Amino acid sequence: METNDRKEIVENIRYLLDVRDEPKLKNIIIDTHPADLADIIQDLDDDEKIFLFSLIKPEIASDVVLELDEVTRELIVTSVETERLSAIVDEMDSDDATDVVSELPEQRAKEVLALVDTQDRAEVQKLLLHDEESAGGIMALEIVTVYDDETVDDAIQQIREKADEIEDIYYIYAIDRGGRLVGIVSLQQIILSKAKTLIREIMDLDVISVTVEKDQEEVANLVRKYDLVAVPVVDAYNRLVGRITIDDIVDVLQEEATEDMQRMAGISEEEVLQETSTFRIARFRLPWLIIAFIGEIGGISVLNHFKASIQQIISISFFIPVIMAMAGNAGIQSSTIVVRSIALSEGGTSRIWERFFREIKVAFLNSFVLSSMIFIVVWVMFQQPDFGLAIAVAMMLVILIAATVGATAPFLLNKINIDPAIATGPFITTCNDVLGLFIYLISVTTYINWIK
Amino acid sequence: METNDRKEIVENIRYLLDVRDEPKLKNIIIDTHPADLADIIQDLDDDEKIFLFSLIKPEIASDVVLELDEVTRELIVTSVETERLSAIVDEMDSDDATDVVSELPEQRAKEVLALVDTQDRAEVQKLLLHDEESAGGIMALEIVTVYDDETVDDAIQQIREKADEIEDIYYIYAIDRGGRLVGIVSLQQIILSKAKTLIREIMDLDVISVTVEKDQEEVANLVRKYDLVAVPVVDAYNRLVGRITIDDIVDVLQEEATEDMQRMAGISEEEVLQETSTFRIARFRLPWLIIAFIGEIGGISVLNHFKASIQQIISISFFIPVIMAMAGNAGIQSSTIVVRSIALSEGGTSRIWERFFREIKVAFLNSFVLSSMIFIVVWVMFQQPDFGLAIAVAMMLVILIAATVGATAPFLLNKINIDPAIATGPFITTCNDVLGLFIYLISVTTYINWIK
Repeated sequence: METNDRKEIVENIRYLLDVRDEPKLKNIIIDTHPADLADIIQDLDDDEKIFLFSLIKPEIASDVVLELDEVTRELIVTSVETERLSAIVDEMDSDDATDVVSELPEQRAKEVLALVDTQDRAEVQKLLLHDEESAGGIMALEIVTVYDDETVDDAIQQIREKADEIEDIYYIYAIDRGGRLVGIVSLQQIILSKAKTLIREIMDLDVISVTVEKDQEEVANLVRKYDLVAVPVVDAYNRLVGRITIDDIVDVLQEEATEDMQRMAGISEEEVLQETSTFRIARFRLPWLIIAFIGEIGGISVLNHFKASIQQIISISFFIPVIMAMAGNAGIQSSTIVVRSIALSEGGTSRIWERFFREIKVAFLNSFVLSSMIFIVVWVMFQQPDFGLAIAVAMMLVILIAATVGATAPFLLNKINIDPAIATGPFITTCNDVLGLFIYLISVTTYINWIK
Repeated sequence: METNDRKEIVENIRYLLDVRDEPKLKNIIIDTHPADLADIIQDLDDDEKIFLFSLIKPEIASDVVLELDEVTRELIVTSVETERLSAIVDEMDSDDATDVVSELPEQRAKEVLALVDTQDRAEVQKLLLHDEESAGGIMALEIVTVYDDETVDDAIQQIREKADEIEDIYYIYAIDRGGRLVGIVSLQQIILSKAKTLIREIMDLDVISVTVEKDQEEVANLVRKYDLVAVPVVDAYNRLVGRITIDDIVDVLQEEATEDMQRMAGISEEEVLQETSTFRIARFRLPWLIIAFIGEIGGISVLNHFKASIQQIISISFFIPVIMAMAGNAGIQSSTIVVRSIALSEGGTSRIWERFFREIKVAFLNSFVLSSMIFIVVWVMFQQPDFGLAIAVAMMLVILIAATVGATAPFLLNKINIDPAIATGPFITTCNDVLGLFIYLISVTTYINWIK
């Protein structure tokens, strides 16, 4: 649905909501894709959202809920009566049902689960035990399995039985009589094989699977690397327990990219893009600003310490912004490239030092160019080539150190299991600022002492 | 393959390469997934890369080439003789073949194409006409189609015919006798339907398709929104021309996220993560540094202009870093959130103003907190509450303006079709720096004039 169409539809729906024309609204709901319905709902006011959602049947509502942004979903889920919410959850795949239930307050979650189908409840309870960010946390239990000593006909029978429950079957998983994953068969192979063929004869033995504990980001990188549309999940004994489909992987990749960008900018990962409360947004962002603030107060002390130099040559203070900005930019360039390399696990295994030296060499080249430029600027503006030289040397040092910190910090953070994306954010930037100021002032003070 | 395993395999391969044990190397190649082979090759030295690749048969080499990073691929493709390269290209799907050929120098591309199979050549030549970043530029021509008045049996016949050529069939596209896309049938439905059933009776009429000109980022957002594994591509007359599979969409999403992060950090999008040439990296990054440099020279002039004020109260210069850093951080927080919202087309249609006001309100809250803090710091450090008040007011103004610029710039850039991610990069940051300095110095000068 194009943006303009949506605007028109939203206006139309607003009118129909105003006049409470339920039949027409229900017709629109039936004709609209759940993902589009979710978009439309997000464009409405809170009470309109709740009313329109109340008109959607559980089997469609279950799809709509999953497409809503976090903030709208919270509003809707809170407003829906428990019985209806159970009916909606009942319609979902086990992984989605678990996501929705896990977001509920404990008491409400219990009440909702009490009303859903026994088997579904058991599945959700099982999935709730896994870490949210692990393979187990994002897998669904809906899978089609067949024993490797069964036939293609048996497999088709399995597909028939699961067809209502699972909409998107691409592969059938072959297990041995111990439940261990031994092979994988595509639907394409099923169609092209004779009914009596043994699964064992047509299955692909090179199955790429993940264990339940595997981190979702690693799972995503695996799926990306091997171009999979679904990946089976196994337990420690290689017993098949679920599968993760590509749509969930796409969400993980987007989530991780957003998270990295937010960390780069000093925004807590808790802040979601659709957050509407000013106070909550401010609260999520303030900690990083305060960290930077405290760091920069250190900068005031550094400057205060070198007060005598600044008093002697006032123009020393004029170069603070350009020195800080150059160091900041060069440092962020280095750290961003390193952070992204780590996130996409690019660049090989033993390449860390290579990457590191490359960054230093780049910083060396660019700092040389920039230092030459500042030398000329100072010469022209202040007619003092020797002062220009002092500033140029200081700038070169500061850029080199910022790039070194920028290239090193992500590796170190990664080593101690902290998200390396932090390295491009306010914390490291502030350290660079204060360190840079210190080096700059030491350099120019040395110059002052030397000309005396 | 885990990182540690890979290290071991790479060492083993290095040894085998040293002793030129081709049979053993060929055995390893056969036993290893092409994506893993690509990883291994990337870990080797240039001449080892070329030699190991030369041992891989075209049908596997075609998969390996596609998994290599850009830098290694260029090296390999350049080193391979034309005839072998043609054989490798011949094994690829039309979209991948087109990607590889489009990266070749014009003369070489002609030579390679001259040697590939006639039909493949025609396909590649057709695909080369599309914009690289459009749906036509990333689609493959390998699709299974069936007329809507044919039967399930006919569809299975089609699958059988295409099975060699297409490994990953998930959907069959139903067209009318004019070639227009009218429906879609999943393999699951094919399996569960009787042989004589008409396609028309089982096909899903709600097909989500894209036109050849559609921008790849929009295609990716569509696939993400509707949870598709493949999307059919049609021409202006709704005639089916190709399909885009999810693995290519995943690549687009990663590319766009990397690009956005690079723009945020002031790195040209031409710089790829695996780039090895120091000079090339430096050249890609220098332009942004120079833009920032020139901007900050403006900062020197601003400070020079207010020389008298600084001379009068030297400690004015001490607050330059903290003022700049706070404005910078608050501005980047705002612009990052807005940039990401635009990239993921979140936040609805008419929500731009809402988002804007929200950012201003957040900036207001946080600048108030930070200004109060700086007020206390100045009071304690310098025993001058009135000076503290002047600094606090200045900081508040500077943060508010930086957040306004940060929240506005992405929308404006998006409006004039420039990637909004630029807004978080050095250009806007530098503007904010200089503007912030100016406002700060105006504020404190007003204070000085007032106490006199």
